[in-house]
Amino acid sequence: MTAIAITLGDPAGVGPEVTTKALQQLPNHDGIILFGHKEQLSDIPLFEGTIEPNTVYSHPIQTPLTPTDKKDDPDNARIAYESITSALHFCNTHSMNLVTAPISKAGFLAASIPYTGHTTLLKDFFNSPNASMAFYSDQLSVILATIHIPLMSVETALTSDTIKSTLANAKLFANQLGITNPKIGIAGLNPHASEHGQFGDFESNVLTPTLTEFKEDNNTAIIGPVSPDVIFRQALDGDIDVVVALYHDQGLIPLKLLAFDSAVNVTVGLPICRTSPDHGTAYDIAGKNIANPNSMLAAIKYCINR
Amino acid sequence: MTAIAITLGDPAGVGPEVTTKALQQLPNHDGIILFGHKEQLSDIPLFEGTIEPNTVYSHPIQTPLTPTDKKDDPDNARIAYESITSALHFCNTHSMNLVTAPISKAGFLAASIPYTGHTTLLKDFFNSPNASMAFYSDQLSVILATIHIPLMSVETALTSDTIKSTLANAKLFANQLGITNPKIGIAGLNPHASEHGQFGDFESNVLTPTLTEFKEDNNTAIIGPVSPDVIFRQALDGDIDVVVALYHDQGLIPLKLLAFDSAVNVTVGLPICRTSPDHGTAYDIAGKNIANPNSMLAAIKYCINR
Repeated sequence: MTAIAITLGDPAGVGPEVTTKALQQLPNHDGIILFGHKEQLSDIPLFEGTIEPNTVYSHPIQTPLTPTDKKDDPDNARIAYESITSALHFCNTHSMNLVTAPISKAGFLAASIPYTGHTTLLKDFFNSPNASMAFYSDQLSVILATIHIPLMSVETALTSDTIKSTLANAKLFANQLGITNPKIGIAGLNPHASEHGQFGDFESNVLTPTLTEFKEDNNTAIIGPVSPDVIFRQALDGDIDVVVALYHDQGLIPLKLLAFDSAVNVTVGLPICRTSPDHGTAYDIAGKNIANPNSMLAAIKYCINR
Repeated sequence: MTAIAITLGDPAGVGPEVTTKALQQLPNHDGIILFGHKEQLSDIPLFEGTIEPNTVYSHPIQTPLTPTDKKDDPDNARIAYESITSALHFCNTHSMNLVTAPISKAGFLAASIPYTGHTTLLKDFFNSPNASMAFYSDQLSVILATIHIPLMSVETALTSDTIKSTLANAKLFANQLGITNPKIGIAGLNPHASEHGQFGDFESNVLTPTLTEFKEDNNTAIIGPVSPDVIFRQALDGDIDVVVALYHDQGLIPLKLLAFDSAVNVTVGLPICRTSPDHGTAYDIAGKNIANPNSMLAAIKYCINR
């Protein structure tokens, strides 16, 4: 039985709602511990050190702050941040996996918290600078070589080392998904993957030599570089198990198109398994009891099964 | 009755095959004229100056070259190129629309033809530097602000003038599609369209001011900048009629995922209507009589109806 910590995310977002709804749909709760503000956890028994099967526990954070219903609010961001750091210490000492509900990037910025999202925070906490953001869905599994940086910084950020660690994480990710001999494909950077060097030299100068080196070092063949507008169709057709996308939107555009409310965000390369739903705080629908818990449910199930 | 010129494209690719198959599926041929090498047109009556309803004509190019079955062959490229220039002169003098079968970019390069594709060639021929590459499919209609350039050149290429002319073409495109009051949306450049300036300043410094100016000059509201990983889902849900994508793969990844063999490539902003199928020469399946003519058929129908 792997216990799971779930952080409730931004108090004004849909995090608390989708978490509650998802738990109602789970047949077995197996020692799930929720991390958030005490006002949001008052109905749930406190975790006292022993995990009973099929029980949801609470772990209220120690804070004098009060949650508000305000969008991008710095106090809400501090509550969300403390929930995460509190949960992380638990995960570290109790061998638990972690599921995180959405936070507000703008709220974190307003509160001067030095992270733009969970992934960078987790990399720092676990001292795992090479961890990767990945997405699992029934239709498509994608891992990203770079994430929240300007498009114009992508090529510079794509060093040979970055590409190799992402490829290594792609293998880990495939193994997490139960695929022992995965077909891993990597997209090119430029239109048509430059097609004979016509639209840039990144593929010939950096990407292809790196793939060759990776193959020699790891005895693992990688499919690519594939034209970015072709690779996702190949994955959909079953010819590729995990797609390595070189930048945020190269991977997220197809993923969100195919699996809008059912994809799971997975951080690959940490000592624990960590997932989150593939949506943000969704302030516009928060508090209306209309948020769809499918992605949160899939995120929890992913961690339970690993 | 709008007559249509169809160029057969690279002789070793699937162009001649998908053209023949598509014509077989058309109930009415209304003065279609095929442009290609004489060896490929021997069964088809020559066009003699009068267009009869429901007749397919041929116009063999004047060349001593012989088509080969070689991939990316410069002679094949020259045959394809002459077919296009010959067809373009016809279109110009006979008020015809144009459908082009696929060429080989690498073949054009090998033959030192100074174009990487049809779109740039057409812009030059018609002296229409602001024409745009667009794609129509049942699921999604997309127009591109930049096309075959390295990803790292995109931001520099996206001047305010380029964006405005693409927006104007997006209106033309929507009108071609029969939408009189279109909902036009534009994607941001950076992840989450920079989300409060966190991942670049292109949206705040260039894109948003340009959209404001365009609205004032044209009395047309544009939706955006929208997060690139959200806008295509909005289009799929019917909230946007035409998506303006800022770079090749931003538009082509979702398009090819949703409409792999049925999209039509449309050049918007020329004096004539010009389309092509949304696939390349497909050398790997050429000559096997297994190529799918759906996209070519859709390309021909698009031109017939305009």
